[in-house]
Amino acid sequence: MSEASSRVVKLAVIPGDGIGPEVVAEAEKVLDAVVADSGVTFEKTRFSLGAGRFLETGDTLTDEDLDAIRAHDAILLGAVGGQPGDPRLKDANIERGLLLKLRFELDHYVNLRPSKLYPGAPGPLADPGEIDFVVVREGTEGPYVGNGGAIRKGTPHEVANETSVNTAFGVERVVRYAFALAEKRRKRLTLVHKTNVLVHAGAIWKRVVDEVAREHPDVAVDYLHVDAATIFLVTHPSRFDVIVTDNLFGDILTDLAGAVTGGIGLAASGNINPDGAFPSMFEPVHGSAPDIAGQQKADPTAAILSVALLLDHLGLGAQAARVQRAVEEDIASREGTRTTEQTGAAIIARLQA
Amino acid sequence: MSEASSRVVKLAVIPGDGIGPEVVAEAEKVLDAVVADSGVTFEKTRFSLGAGRFLETGDTLTDEDLDAIRAHDAILLGAVGGQPGDPRLKDANIERGLLLKLRFELDHYVNLRPSKLYPGAPGPLADPGEIDFVVVREGTEGPYVGNGGAIRKGTPHEVANETSVNTAFGVERVVRYAFALAEKRRKRLTLVHKTNVLVHAGAIWKRVVDEVAREHPDVAVDYLHVDAATIFLVTHPSRFDVIVTDNLFGDILTDLAGAVTGGIGLAASGNINPDGAFPSMFEPVHGSAPDIAGQQKADPTAAILSVALLLDHLGLGAQAARVQRAVEEDIASREGTRTTEQTGAAIIARLQA
Ligand SMILES: CC(C)[C@H](C(=O)O)[C@@H](O)C(=O)O
Ligand SMILES: CC(C)[C@H](C(=O)O)[C@@H](O)C(=O)O
Repeated sequence: MSEASSRVVKLAVIPGDGIGPEVVAEAEKVLDAVVADSGVTFEKTRFSLGAGRFLETGDTLTDEDLDAIRAHDAILLGAVGGQPGDPRLKDANIERGLLLKLRFELDHYVNLRPSKLYPGAPGPLADPGEIDFVVVREGTEGPYVGNGGAIRKGTPHEVANETSVNTAFGVERVVRYAFALAEKRRKRLTLVHKTNVLVHAGAIWKRVVDEVAREHPDVAVDYLHVDAATIFLVTHPSRFDVIVTDNLFGDILTDLAGAVTGGIGLAASGNINPDGAFPSMFEPVHGSAPDIAGQQKADPTAAILSVALLLDHLGLGAQAARVQRAVEEDIASREGTRTTEQTGAAIIARLQA
Repeated sequence: MSEASSRVVKLAVIPGDGIGPEVVAEAEKVLDAVVADSGVTFEKTRFSLGAGRFLETGDTLTDEDLDAIRAHDAILLGAVGGQPGDPRLKDANIERGLLLKLRFELDHYVNLRPSKLYPGAPGPLADPGEIDFVVVREGTEGPYVGNGGAIRKGTPHEVANETSVNTAFGVERVVRYAFALAEKRRKRLTLVHKTNVLVHAGAIWKRVVDEVAREHPDVAVDYLHVDAATIFLVTHPSRFDVIVTDNLFGDILTDLAGAVTGGIGLAASGNINPDGAFPSMFEPVHGSAPDIAGQQKADPTAAILSVALLLDHLGLGAQAARVQRAVEEDIASREGTRTTEQTGAAIIARLQA
């Protein structure tokens, strides 16, 4: 056995809630199929986390969970979150207590969200043109930090503050990642912010991008206010190559980007710690969609494309490309409705063809 | 002469920069035409404000300007803002120092932004359906307050904070306005926020909407996270009637809404102080577009529709409806390219037909 053929990857799998388990099941089958003859073995540990676990045990993400997850090389996550308005989940905040906690604790400072309009994908735009860009969303600071609070809560005199925290350290590392990515792509980088209004947060983003840009004279850099960026995403999405932006603007832009490229059933993402200090986490952009859970209605493509991102991150570029190609072929030839499993099976068939 | 026929409205006109003067010129002609036989006289004062004025005098908005403007019944504004990147404007921040200062000082707590897809308007969506909703954007607090700052500015250890301030007083008054508007429309109200992440700011919005909703049992209320709202705006915009949201989310959603309804060349807005303590201000959503300024390329329709909102605000509903109808007829029959003046003239011709 060669060195390469003995590589073992420890993968934490978090199927989660709602459609999470269904789409992750297909993603895992694709993963198993594509690495079958690669000499790489994936050792999987399943973690029961999410609204379901909370309702059973009252736990969202314990220190033991976190330690156990940290001992893995990467994470595959389906989706977490219970039925909206479920009174038993009122104080749970699965989003902050689980999903964001993982992103923050594992220092996933790059939230990587590619958007591509695949031939055959049903998009809402009459004349989309070519769409192929990547949003590099900051993942560990900005308005997501949870800093804030309220006084006189629940009274007519309440004041509730929410503070966006932006550090040169945090902005610079994600901006550097975005420039490096732009170098490997079409060498265009767009900073999206709202510098004319959010002058404090905006200034640090602008300064850091200007500084790092000097080291990349071959990358064409421009800037858009977030409101204008949403316009271009529907009127002229082909203008984008790499977008770098903060946690909240990135959240908004990537849902919109998912919609214009055929729905968030196709949108994959990686929560990446480029330093490798912690395992990176790959997940579809979509949520747990409890309304259609367990009905085999969910499209597993976003989860499967997240596997491609995972493979790429692990240095398994050839395998990533195979998954990517199989998905593109499948999208190009879709007809009628299929179950979650049927879509998974169709993609695996292309993979093995 | 009857009482009504002797009414005088004092109107402050701020043509501003770039295409502002061109579009305001047409808007004024429409205003003059529609009130010609109404018995209402508009006494106009022109204010030279914007990047141009700043470059000439170094002033953005003086206390004297503000006092003079306050003495009016309403304001018509074109657009303000100079050439992006003009080094002489580096420290001006026309947006904060002029536009936002007017909104804040004149307590424009309702930023009213109707979105309608007019028959004949060129939208980017393949299958838009009917689009007819109004965004009620809070105008005086949230992330727009400018609270924040930076330490170790310009160094690798900089920390820049930006604080969103939300008060029960501020949220309640705009939410009440939105519910009253929904009562007069299709009785659907959607709160847009990001309550699962911005827990402090989100909680006060959620609480206030829940409370005011109890007084409006006939209004159907729902909630969307801002990211999901952008998806629906391109995939299912007909689901919206009244959207109520904070200053920043409202900024983002209304540019996107403008794009899906045929471009921000058609999007009008009112910055309203419903209490009447200060003059309300009507302006197109678009900016000053210095790249096409002075070329008669700008579409004055958004400025003209802003006149309709102004007339409505002044209780001149019949006149507002006439402007609205003339614009709709014009949009339905547009062909080829026209100059700014030609579009204005075409709308006036319809008005007088
Ligand atoms: C569920 C939520 C906390 C999350 C976010 O806002 O980041 C989601 O919208 C996403 O984009 O992954
Ligand atoms: C120019 C800018 C300050 C303004 C805003 O953000 O409110 C504009 O985008 C708008 O929507 O009127």
